[in-house]
Amino acid sequence: METKIAVFAGTFDPITLGHVDIINRSLRLVDKMIIAIGVNTKKQTLFSLEDRMAWIQEIFKDEPKIEVDNYTDLTVNYCRSKGAKYIMRGLRNGSDFDYEAHIAQVNKELAPEIETLFTISSPELSYISSTIVRDLILYGGDYSNFVPNSVAISKAKRNF
Amino acid sequence: METKIAVFAGTFDPITLGHVDIINRSLRLVDKMIIAIGVNTKKQTLFSLEDRMAWIQEIFKDEPKIEVDNYTDLTVNYCRSKGAKYIMRGLRNGSDFDYEAHIAQVNKELAPEIETLFTISSPELSYISSTIVRDLILYGGDYSNFVPNSVAISKAKRNF
Amino acid sequence: METKIAVFAGTFDPITLGHVDIINRSLRLVDKMIIAIGVNTKKQTLFSLEDRMAWIQEIFKDEPKIEVDNYTDLTVNYCRSKGAKYIMRGLRNGSDFDYEAHIAQVNKELAPEIETLFTISSPELSYISSTIVRDLILYGGDYSNFVPNSVAISKAKRNF
Amino acid sequence: METKIAVFAGTFDPITLGHVDIINRSLRLVDKMIIAIGVNTKKQTLFSLEDRMAWIQEIFKDEPKIEVDNYTDLTVNYCRSKGAKYIMRGLRNGSDFDYEAHIAQVNKELAPEIETLFTISSPELSYISSTIVRDLILYGGDYSNFVPNSVAISKAKRNF
Amino acid sequence: METKIAVFAGTFDPITLGHVDIINRSLRLVDKMIIAIGVNTKKQTLFSLEDRMAWIQEIFKDEPKIEVDNYTDLTVNYCRSKGAKYIMRGLRNGSDFDYEAHIAQVNKELAPEIETLFTISSPELSYISSTIVRDLILYGGDYSNFVPNSVAISKAKRNF
Amino acid sequence: METKIAVFAGTFDPITLGHVDIINRSLRLVDKMIIAIGVNTKKQTLFSLEDRMAWIQEIFKDEPKIEVDNYTDLTVNYCRSKGAKYIMRGLRNGSDFDYEAHIAQVNKELAPEIETLFTISSPELSYISSTIVRDLILYGGDYSNFVPNSVAISKAKRNF
Repeated sequence: METKIAVFAGTFDPITLGHVDIINRSLRLVDKMIIAIGVNTKKQTLFSLEDRMAWIQEIFKDEPKIEVDNYTDLTVNYCRSKGAKYIMRGLRNGSDFDYEAHIAQVNKELAPEIETLFTISSPELSYISSTIVRDLILYGGDYSNFVPNSVAISKAKRNF
Repeated sequence: METKIAVFAGTFDPITLGHVDIINRSLRLVDKMIIAIGVNTKKQTLFSLEDRMAWIQEIFKDEPKIEVDNYTDLTVNYCRSKGAKYIMRGLRNGSDFDYEAHIAQVNKELAPEIETLFTISSPELSYISSTIVRDLILYGGDYSNFVPNSVAISKAKRNF
Repeated sequence: METKIAVFAGTFDPITLGHVDIINRSLRLVDKMIIAIGVNTKKQTLFSLEDRMAWIQEIFKDEPKIEVDNYTDLTVNYCRSKGAKYIMRGLRNGSDFDYEAHIAQVNKELAPEIETLFTISSPELSYISSTIVRDLILYGGDYSNFVPNSVAISKAKRNF
Repeated sequence: METKIAVFAGTFDPITLGHVDIINRSLRLVDKMIIAIGVNTKKQTLFSLEDRMAWIQEIFKDEPKIEVDNYTDLTVNYCRSKGAKYIMRGLRNGSDFDYEAHIAQVNKELAPEIETLFTISSPELSYISSTIVRDLILYGGDYSNFVPNSVAISKAKRNF
Repeated sequence: METKIAVFAGTFDPITLGHVDIINRSLRLVDKMIIAIGVNTKKQTLFSLEDRMAWIQEIFKDEPKIEVDNYTDLTVNYCRSKGAKYIMRGLRNGSDFDYEAHIAQVNKELAPEIETLFTISSPELSYISSTIVRDLILYGGDYSNFVPNSVAISKAKRNF
Repeated sequence: METKIAVFAGTFDPITLGHVDIINRSLRLVDKMIIAIGVNTKKQTLFSLEDRMAWIQEIFKDEPKIEVDNYTDLTVNYCRSKGAKYIMRGLRNGSDFDYEAHIAQVNKELAPEIETLFTISSPELSYISSTIVRDLILYGGDYSNFVPNSVAISKAKRNF
């Protein structure tokens, strides 16, 4: 039987409890899940790629199905290079939906053999986003309830 | 390895090309998919349960992974009785999302071990719904582009 | 040059100031506009077809481009029978949009030569709907600010 | 200083933990809150008016600011009869918003001196609705996590 | 009885008739309302903080319940420093809602004792935003119908 | 009879098959349609104004009703200078709607004699946008299915 490989792509600047929830809920469905940090050299991030990768590796270090990686290509091209037939995404609300539907349909046109699958965020985590965590960091707010423990206690140098 | 069983539940009054698209796109992901007609004795349907089941069986007769069934219980109870850990759903637009998110979250509360997974409808099929097909039937419109061939040519007696 | 004929279809139970706004704003664009009451024998209305037609005729009696009619067929079939190439619709909010987009796409599939055009309701009228007027009537509320004068002063017998 | 009176109106068929959350969060803001069951003789409810009132009275029996009542009139007329200048509402998602905005604007037109105020549901309760509780009851599902304890243990006779 | 203090926060670049409407409608509910300009040193504004504060002070100079201020901290921290238990917000449409719900839920998590309250914009003002006023200014359009008189006639130097 | 002139304004960076679909569907309704590139000196585009104009001229070179132009003014001022009484727009989804409704209402306030008309994108083109085409270009993806042939084969120099 074909090995089912999925890609969960994002910027993860930083990874949040919302991401972890989506990953854990979809993990059972596949044989391997690649958490892939999309690197866009034009987009400034708050945390370095090294920190972002290290956090994800630490969080899932006991989960053999998970591989952590990064890529600079189009997401569908990256999926093809890894043999992944599934893109996993989380949906938080109706505004997310319109955006995600656009991306999923473009990816379907570019790579018809790759399917995008969605789960809906747990309601108590649905308001968490990396953007809000970064805003809290910038204003000195307490973001420890929004991120995994390894991120919360990190001494990572920020890019600013 | 655990057999992955999914339920795709609906009224299918009648099954449309939109349903078939969602089923075909999610089928690869699972070992078995049960297309399950939810029977609600208080809700009048246009077509009999027998016709609705026969159409689905005919459409997927060459697909060994698919089983066609019907149920009267809560969907999550039905899933448990069949050993299904996944509910498959299709999303067409932002209004669908708010409704589907409600149902998915209630099901998660009732049965935390069952995950709801969504795919987004192909855009050229996203405007098709059983409601619109029934309206076309009632007004004598041509609905053959909206349903599988076996439904279009059917001589099914309608419940009215 | 081709005569441009548009259909503005609805139940108009009763016609509101929201409808009148949309009609007046789109009228300039066409040579003839048919305000067409869709008659659905299964759907109970509050006012009789005769009253609903009489009100619309009274409101637009000085507008030579407007014709008032009723029909029982599919809307696109009715348009074809009248030589109308345009369906005019009003949009009030994002929820309206998803519903209207579905209908417009089905009509496009059924009759590719007929185009649906939309205007957005004037904001101060965007909360008016026939449903709300009917609710006000049923509870004895004052609805005179929501309907044209001829409806407000009418002694029409209601169907209940 | 003027006594601030608010009305929280609904069908409460039955009252849910979502309602209780909204009430508790807005209570501090006002001097008196009237939880008012809107009675519509044309709309069949699952539970009797007596049961629905008794549950709410039981839940808030230690809260002196709360009064439980019922009414058959338009909501704004009822507010006026009680001297209430505020209508309290809860919002769960974007679809709720469009509906609630319509109602609030009609009420503003009918009674400019009455203001509608909204709070947003706690995310972990945002998927709970009376409709979903009634569906669970009808299908024999466990709804005890969705309603206050007094409703969950009730032996109320249902209207069916 | 506790003094009820609310914060209405924003950038007010410039204040519009939409803001004034929301402030006037919520004012009656509280004992004191602080209109607080959030200062973000990384975000370039069109008008200086001094002009923006002066306009608001001029508009509400006869309203003893209103205080005008500015802050650089997280909004909830600012509220705590002022003893404010309420954040007042206006909602214009369903897209606003998803954004505002996120912010409100984060604020609830950070400061559970502070409640966010919403009113819905008057429909005839719902399309006005500071962004649109700034665009009109940049293109030389007439924005006098969108802002209070003191802003419209101002000779304020713009930051560009 | 008055000549009906419409403006279809945009940045067209680059023009897509989605734009072409909307233009073709609305063309029949008017006597003349001006495809007008809005030039904003502060906004960097991927393609030069010359390339963007040349593509549109090439695509519609056999369509006598179409004129291609560019402007730097407010859209309604440009419409007035050309005698255009209609602004044509396309709508893709509910998120588009909220944005477009804002713009249309501001334009109505600024120029009450100009009407904005909308068509809904063909579903199979509804996910195409200039933004997505630019992203594909930047990442080396194949965008030939999303743009007219003259754009796809172009050797245009990009502004980066």
